[in-house]
Amino acid sequence: RETVCIFGTGDFGRALGHKLIQSGYPVVYGSRTTQISNLIPKDAEVLGHAEAAQKAAIIIIAIQRQHYNFLTPLAEVLRGKVLVDISNNLKLNQYPESNAEYLSQLLPGSKVVKAFNTVSAWALQSGTLDASRQVFVCGDDVEAKQMVMNIVRALGLTPLDKGSLLAAQEIENYPLQLFPMWKFPIILSFGLAAFFFFYCLVLDVIYTYIYEKNNFSFFIAITIPNRVFPVMALILLALVYLPGIFAAIIQLYRGTKYRRFPDWLDKWMLCRKQLGLIALAFASLHAVFTLVAPLRAFVSWRTSKTIISQALNNKTEPLNHTNAWLSDSYLALGILGYFLFVLLGITSLPSVSNNVNWREFRFVQSKLGYLALIFCTAHTLVYGGKWFLSPSAYKWYLPNIYILSLIVPCAVLVVKFVLIFPCVDKPLTQIRQGWE
Amino acid sequence: RETVCIFGTGDFGRALGHKLIQSGYPVVYGSRTTQISNLIPKDAEVLGHAEAAQKAAIIIIAIQRQHYNFLTPLAEVLRGKVLVDISNNLKLNQYPESNAEYLSQLLPGSKVVKAFNTVSAWALQSGTLDASRQVFVCGDDVEAKQMVMNIVRALGLTPLDKGSLLAAQEIENYPLQLFPMWKFPIILSFGLAAFFFFYCLVLDVIYTYIYEKNNFSFFIAITIPNRVFPVMALILLALVYLPGIFAAIIQLYRGTKYRRFPDWLDKWMLCRKQLGLIALAFASLHAVFTLVAPLRAFVSWRTSKTIISQALNNKTEPLNHTNAWLSDSYLALGILGYFLFVLLGITSLPSVSNNVNWREFRFVQSKLGYLALIFCTAHTLVYGGKWFLSPSAYKWYLPNIYILSLIVPCAVLVVKFVLIFPCVDKPLTQIRQGWE
Amino acid sequence: RETVCIFGTGDFGRALGHKLIQSGYPVVYGSRTTQISNLIPKDAEVLGHAEAAQKAAIIIIAIQRQHYNFLTPLAEVLRGKVLVDISNNLKLNQYPESNAEYLSQLLPGSKVVKAFNTVSAWALQSGTLDASRQVFVCGDDVEAKQMVMNIVRALGLTPLDKGSLLAAQEIENYPLQLFPMWKFPIILSFGLAAFFFFYCLVLDVIYTYIYEKNNFSFFIAITIPNRVFPVMALILLALVYLPGIFAAIIQLYRGTKYRRFPDWLDKWMLCRKQLGLIALAFASLHAVFTLVAPLRAFVSWRTSKTIISQALNNKTEPLNHTNAWLSDSYLALGILGYFLFVLLGITSLPSVSNNVNWREFRFVQSKLGYLALIFCTAHTLVYGGKWFLSPSAYKWYLPNIYILSLIVPCAVLVVKFVLIFPCVDKPLTQIRQGWE
Ligand SMILES: Cc1cc2nc3c(=O)[nH]c(=O)nc-3n(C[C@H](O)[C@H](O)[C@H](O)COP(=O)(O)OP(=O)(O)OC[C@H]3O[C@@H](n4cnc5c(N)ncnc54)[C@H](O)[C@@H]3O)c2cc1C
Ligand SMILES: Cc1cc2nc3c(=O)[nH]c(=O)nc-3n(C[C@H](O)[C@H](O)[C@H](O)COP(=O)(O)OP(=O)(O)OC[C@H]3O[C@@H](n4cnc5c(N)ncnc54)[C@H](O)[C@@H]3O)c2cc1C
Ligand SMILES: Cc1cc2nc3c(=O)[nH]c(=O)nc-3n(C[C@H](O)[C@H](O)[C@H](O)COP(=O)(O)OP(=O)(O)OC[C@H]3O[C@@H](n4cnc5c(N)ncnc54)[C@H](O)[C@@H]3O)c2cc1C
Ligand SMILES: NC(=O)c1ccc[n+]([C@@H]2O[C@H](COP(=O)([O-])OP(=O)(O)OC[C@H]3O[C@@H](n4cnc5c(N)ncnc54)[C@H](OP(=O)(O)O)[C@@H]3O)[C@@H](O)[C@H]2O)c1
Ligand SMILES: NC(=O)c1ccc[n+]([C@@H]2O[C@H](COP(=O)([O-])OP(=O)(O)OC[C@H]3O[C@@H](n4cnc5c(N)ncnc54)[C@H](OP(=O)(O)O)[C@@H]3O)[C@@H](O)[C@H]2O)c1
Ligand SMILES: NC(=O)c1ccc[n+]([C@@H]2O[C@H](COP(=O)([O-])OP(=O)(O)OC[C@H]3O[C@@H](n4cnc5c(N)ncnc54)[C@H](OP(=O)(O)O)[C@@H]3O)[C@@H](O)[C@H]2O)c1
Ligand SMILES: CCCCCCCCCCCCCCCC(=O)OC[C@H](COP(=O)(O)O)OC(=O)CCCCCCCCCCCCCCC
Ligand SMILES: CCCCCCCCCCCCCCCC(=O)OC[C@H](COP(=O)(O)O)OC(=O)CCCCCCCCCCCCCCC
Ligand SMILES: CCCCCCCCCCCCCCCC(=O)OC[C@H](COP(=O)(O)O)OC(=O)CCCCCCCCCCCCCCC
Ligand code: HEM
Ligand code: HEM
Ligand code: HEM
Repeated sequence: RETVCIFGTGDFGRALGHKLIQSGYPVVYGSRTTQISNLIPKDAEVLGHAEAAQKAAIIIIAIQRQHYNFLTPLAEVLRGKVLVDISNNLKLNQYPESNAEYLSQLLPGSKVVKAFNTVSAWALQSGTLDASRQVFVCGDDVEAKQMVMNIVRALGLTPLDKGSLLAAQEIENYPLQLFPMWKFPIILSFGLAAFFFFYCLVLDVIYTYIYEKNNFSFFIAITIPNRVFPVMALILLALVYLPGIFAAIIQLYRGTKYRRFPDWLDKWMLCRKQLGLIALAFASLHAVFTLVAPLRAFVSWRTSKTIISQALNNKTEPLNHTNAWLSDSYLALGILGYFLFVLLGITSLPSVSNNVNWREFRFVQSKLGYLALIFCTAHTLVYGGKWFLSPSAYKWYLPNIYILSLIVPCAVLVVKFVLIFPCVDKPLTQIRQGWE
Repeated sequence: RETVCIFGTGDFGRALGHKLIQSGYPVVYGSRTTQISNLIPKDAEVLGHAEAAQKAAIIIIAIQRQHYNFLTPLAEVLRGKVLVDISNNLKLNQYPESNAEYLSQLLPGSKVVKAFNTVSAWALQSGTLDASRQVFVCGDDVEAKQMVMNIVRALGLTPLDKGSLLAAQEIENYPLQLFPMWKFPIILSFGLAAFFFFYCLVLDVIYTYIYEKNNFSFFIAITIPNRVFPVMALILLALVYLPGIFAAIIQLYRGTKYRRFPDWLDKWMLCRKQLGLIALAFASLHAVFTLVAPLRAFVSWRTSKTIISQALNNKTEPLNHTNAWLSDSYLALGILGYFLFVLLGITSLPSVSNNVNWREFRFVQSKLGYLALIFCTAHTLVYGGKWFLSPSAYKWYLPNIYILSLIVPCAVLVVKFVLIFPCVDKPLTQIRQGWE
Repeated sequence: RETVCIFGTGDFGRALGHKLIQSGYPVVYGSRTTQISNLIPKDAEVLGHAEAAQKAAIIIIAIQRQHYNFLTPLAEVLRGKVLVDISNNLKLNQYPESNAEYLSQLLPGSKVVKAFNTVSAWALQSGTLDASRQVFVCGDDVEAKQMVMNIVRALGLTPLDKGSLLAAQEIENYPLQLFPMWKFPIILSFGLAAFFFFYCLVLDVIYTYIYEKNNFSFFIAITIPNRVFPVMALILLALVYLPGIFAAIIQLYRGTKYRRFPDWLDKWMLCRKQLGLIALAFASLHAVFTLVAPLRAFVSWRTSKTIISQALNNKTEPLNHTNAWLSDSYLALGILGYFLFVLLGITSLPSVSNNVNWREFRFVQSKLGYLALIFCTAHTLVYGGKWFLSPSAYKWYLPNIYILSLIVPCAVLVVKFVLIFPCVDKPLTQIRQGWE
């Protein structure tokens, strides 16, 4: 294999050198000090920059951007060579041009390729490449890029060609991002959850405190979260399916699919996966918070109070069949809804979704997803139905939150029901198949 | 990069064009109307078909098969060019020959490559390539195929070479399939579950109604499902390990592994993964249905009735140690069995199974799988053991379903136990290692 | 495509032949007997070894190493050909040199490439390539290796170049390994768990039996495991974050990152993932064991005893608000801790960690991980806090195990708290960024 030269014997330079030698590449370092420390891989040579550069066709620049100007005197030696820029910045869009483009401007005679910046030195050396097996590569020279991609592959990493050096900015921004697609869904759900939390606090704790003189402040720990979480889950789940409804209506109204959706709708459609997963997280919390109920001191106290008062009154109530039916069926509906929900979550794991075809994916995500929405809505309806008209659900004239939570899902289900009528579905299908 | 030509400015043509331009390919469209709409990617040229074709070596035909005949007049221009057929059909095996072969017959002078048909236009454009990162490629000309595969890779997708154009039929059928491997296991489990449901309905609801005049119809929601689900889980789990037993017996009997298994056994062995995952789904439902028990109106009513009657009788029963032992141990066994079950599920996630070697995979799937079967069977035995001989388990002379459910797992475990005796295991191992 | 020759019509030879033919390669077998059995793929030719070898440039040796010496007479025919060694051994490092090197010594004129040994014949033939989609390839001749890797890719498998033939030993050992990274964490946790089990047995069963004459032996099934599991989960979780603390202290002390950590620390850091996942398993078991509590005969007996005695005494205790607060908040803390725990588990699935960048991965693993540790520690503190000073927590002067379990996590959290003070954090960051 051809010799690879690395400029810089820092963390990244050494880690990469180690890996390259393991994969059978001879490595030569270009460094300011040619003393060989015991951290530098054994089989590697350490030379001055110019000498080292002459020994190889590919030079990896494992040095911070700030020091790039020391390379200008070497321009002659580096002419025609492939320079691999692996540098990262500390902030998004820190410099007007990307580091790789800057390097290319400094040394117009060399072929600059951006690569390896997503790989962590520590991960590379220790072999725990958990979050960085994918290496984005870009560059203007196709052959240079190919050479670098071969090295990437030989190291057991997966190269991903991102096109010309223009893509370097994006590639340099990538490792600085923190869940960009999750930002809006998370803000939305935190906002909504905070609102519902205070809403419940007012109705369940403050109202009770004022009118019934009962201090139920400990409801903050479990009771209120377990009202907010399921409500959030239900609303977010409905919000996942709402944009599809809007899209259908817009397409029907316009009579064509060949027009862009409004921007907000496009963005919304792109964060449905994230919304759905957050909904799943809320639903999981709801499930576990519900299941611990019998362990709560408050619940056992309430249960024993009821039983004791019955015992003291010397009467055993007969089984209320309606109640038994209602309680069993809302529990069963909730469990089935949650089951489908988890199924949706499992199929959105990248490795699973990569192993199903588009039709299967849409079957689970769209058909079973709607089924999950139906079950969850029915669960809430059956649970709360009997109190819909009872005044206790309207303290201070404010409806209970599960009543609020039902608005969006019911609306989605009703409109969807209209949309699958043949007389609406047929033109829609035609529009989506491209007939105009 | 080389120019790519796309025929057809429809959904797919535009989506692909966008992506290609992003990846640095110049794109030229061949269209019936050369008007540039604002949906077409900005940097792309739109020309007539013939003109466009002349500008590129690769032409992607983003047009439905029905319109392919408009290409025949262009045969001369397309001679020697690579034509990429991306079309799909609406039904499995809709036409006698595949679209790609049809195209190749229409234009014998061109090199037809099948590709991209598994990718959805919408996913391509929006970047949410959830279910379609894998692109199957086939074609008779190796170089043409290589060119197309390079494009596929440049778009960030993974090409998978499927051989000659004969594979096109299969590739065109792929996106139309809906979980073919799951069909039989799902039908089997639905059938069995329905049978057990009615069996329980008869014994738990109808029998009680007739003889005890109690209307327990609400058992349909939770009680009966929670008897059917675990029974299904246990039987399906046993059915996963049964074919391995049959295989061993057949191999022992024949004294050689160099003969094909009967067809039914082969098929059965291939759907063990699916059977196992369905069993896991049933077991998960059983676990959650069990855990909600204390929340059921019926259960709290029954509990308080028992307590009140004790209180009214002024006696507190002492702790029944046998009962405590039995109840604790069947619960513990069930949980441990379920834990191993989930472990089996996790290792069957494609990304996990790809990161373990064959020995590790078989250790989990075969050794821990049998352990799970042992735990689950023991769980059922300990739970039901004390009623085995009680007449209440044989209403209308029909055994309770957990008795039925134990037949297959116990049989599997007993035969497996025989098979691991050295005197049986040694010849079997020899046979499997190829000694005859 | 070029003809491929396979020596040996055994299990592996046939399975590979089938696949190769499916992918469009002509296949010719070299065998001792040229009789065509019906197991051999239909389109393949079967010839003598010498004849077969002449027909192809690549020869796959699907024969056990013990029989390799029959190849020496064929040395002339095989000169310059690519020989693919696919053999496995039965034990780690069974022979002094690897099979591939042995083959290369036998036939110095041929180019030996090691490949395919991780693939199981049965998996290859049946298509269920669950644990073996990755094919490690090594060899001294780059072109030969490239040819083999193309075949691997054409079969739908992923080749991984491991360098020169020296890597063959490692590749041959790979399929014989059984979770090498998990060994130490599993031994550690089994040891610890056994210790805590006996510790609890002594305090909860034997002590009670001796002093209170109560036989609570059935605690072995659920009560004691449900004390050991959470304690193990907490300690292991703390042990995941302890090495990072040590690393920071060492780096601060030395004032540089450019020195290797002591060996034990390096090893510990590399098995944090496994420790974490085992902790997750324990925590999951704790969660489920906790949730089944209301179903236990012992618990219902205890509950009804309390209620009945209250009823008989004719008094209903008022709600103890402190208790309600404590019980609700330790439950809520436990659930939130567990939720974050599962999130860490999900992001360590290979397919998920591959889809996040390094910053995101560390955000979840380090930030949310510490949050999980905080929640879990708080959960234990709130649960056990009120008994810290009660003598009942010190039977036989031995502290209760949850007190023991709090030592490591509290130490980790306190030191970490010191480390994030700006006056400590700043120099540490500088050191880690390479300033000396
Ligand atoms: C737990 C959970 C996990 C999820 N994971 C994922 C995930 O991994 N990936 C993901 O994408 N979503 C995910 N989602 C979101 C959701 O399931 C999907 O977005 C779902 O497919 C939406 O279904 P729908 O019926 O509303 O879409 P549809 O109504 O089918 O589609 C609406 C829009 O899709 C586009 N479209 C679809 N087909 C066509 C066509 N033929 N022509 C033109 N346009 C078309 C159009 O823009 C159309 O208007 C998840 C949701 C949940 C709850
Ligand atoms: C939750 C769950 C998930 C599952 N996921 C998967 C999955 O992802 N993938 C999967 O494949 N299965 C999966 N299964 C099914 C099951 O675990 C496996 O099929 C399991 O390996 C069967 O073990 P066994 O001991 O019966 O097989 P064995 O008895 O070892 O094998 C039986 C047969 O395997 C073949 N075989 C194995 N070794 C040899 C050999 N040396 N020579 C010849 N033939 C051999 C033979 O045909 C043999 O007769 C899953 C099951 C469950 C419950
Ligand atoms: C359920 C679960 C699952 C887990 N899964 C995984 C997993 O999949 N993969 C995994 O790796 N871990 C996993 N872990 C372990 C754990 O989460 C991680 O190791 C975690 O990142 C440790 O965080 P920390 O803050 O202690 O590390 P840090 O304190 O950030 O790092 C400590 C050490 O990391 C190295 N390091 C980090 N950044 C630098 C730098 N800039 N310069 C020099 N050295 C640096 C140094 O050696 C440093 O001393 C898992 C844990 C749990 C509980
Ligand atoms: N560390 C990572 O995880 C990681 C990951 C991806 C990308 N990167 C990128 O890799 C680059 C290096 O990172 P690092 O972590 O290896 O940094 P580092 O440990 O600080 O090493 C930098 C090296 O650059 C050389 N250098 C420093 N100043 C110089 C100067 N004025 N003139 C010439 N050479 C100089 C030094 O090598 P000599 O003493 O041998 O001259 C030094 O060891 C950065 O651009 C970083 O963004 C790092
Ligand atoms: N959409 C997907 O998700 C998807 C996924 C995989 C494969 N495919 C396949 O891609 C092909 C096109 O699908 P599409 O969704 O893009 O369809 P589309 O939106 O209906 O576009 C078809 C295009 O074909 C051209 N065309 C139509 N009639 C023609 C005729 N008589 N003569 C010449 N050109 C004609 C038109 O382009 P001009 O007006 O520019 O001539 C039209 O825009 C189909 O074969 C489909 O199976 C689609
Ligand atoms: N089976 C697997 O799952 C698997 C997986 C990975 C690697 N491997 C490796 O593949 C190799 C073959 O395994 P296998 O399972 O196919 O074994 P097998 O079924 O026993 O077949 C071995 C074949 O080698 C030939 N052979 C046996 N003795 C010979 C001799 N003295 N001289 C010449 N040829 C002889 C025979 O073919 P002819 O009768 O045609 O001459 C025989 O069919 C082994 O090295 C194994 O480690 C196997
Ligand atoms: C109420 C609780 C709900 C729990 C639900 C568990 C359901 C498990 C059923 C798995 C369904 C998989 C659909 C796969 C689609 C497909 O075809 O997928 C196809 C792929 C690829 O298959 P091939 O590689 O064979 O082609 O198969 C898979 O990926 C298998 C996925 C296995 C998933 C197991 C996940 C286990 C996680 C455990 C969660 C436990 C939760 C416990 C809660 C208490
Ligand atoms: C009773 C409930 C049971 C819940 C069980 C949870 C167990 C978690 C233990 C993980 C064991 C992983 C075995 C990996 C084999 C291996 O070596 O696998 C090796 C691979 C690859 O490792 P490398 O990349 O390091 O080589 O590692 C992994 O893939 C890690 C898999 C992590 C899986 C975490 C899954 C979390 C899902 C959470 C489910 C929660 C259910 C909650 C129910 C209440
Ligand atoms: C207390 C119980 C806790 C249960 C927690 C369930 C939480 C689910 C939330 C998912 C969070 C995903 C973080 C993804 C990080 C990321 O950006 O990941 C990014 C990746 C890649 O995304 P792109 O492909 O879109 O780039 O996305 C994913 O991988 C999605 C992962 C989905 C995981 C779903 C897992 C379902 C398993 C169900 C377990 C149920 C347990 C039930 C217990 C009772
Ligand atoms: C394991 C599955 C589930 C179980 C066992 C379950 C159980 C329950 C219970 C017992 C209640 C009553 C809570 C109370 O008394 O305060 C409830 C309420 C509710 N559930 Fe579920 N549920 C499950 C899943 C779901 C899912 C998946 C959703 C929606 C996505 C959901 C939405 C709701 C809503 C909105 C309420 C009303 C909340 C309120 O106002 O109190 N549930 N559920
Ligand atoms: C979390 C794990 C589990 C728990 C807590 C659990 C608990 C229980 C309980 C309480 C019962 C009695 C139900 C009743 O009274 O009607 C039961 C029955 C049963 N369980 Fe489980 N179980 C678990 C896992 C499993 C698994 C994994 C299997 C099998 C694959 C299984 C198979 C059965 C069977 C067959 C019965 C008898 C059903 C009947 O006829 O009523 N269980 N389980
Ligand atoms: C679903 C989440 C969880 C729930 C519902 C839960 C619930 C409980 C309960 C009820 C107890 C008291 C047990 C008893 O009375 O014997 C307990 C104890 C404990 N929990 Fe959790 N817990 C959860 C998660 C966790 C997690 C994730 C950890 C730590 C990693 C943890 C660590 C502990 C410890 C150390 C104890 C004390 C054990 C003892 O000495 O008895 N818990 N938990």
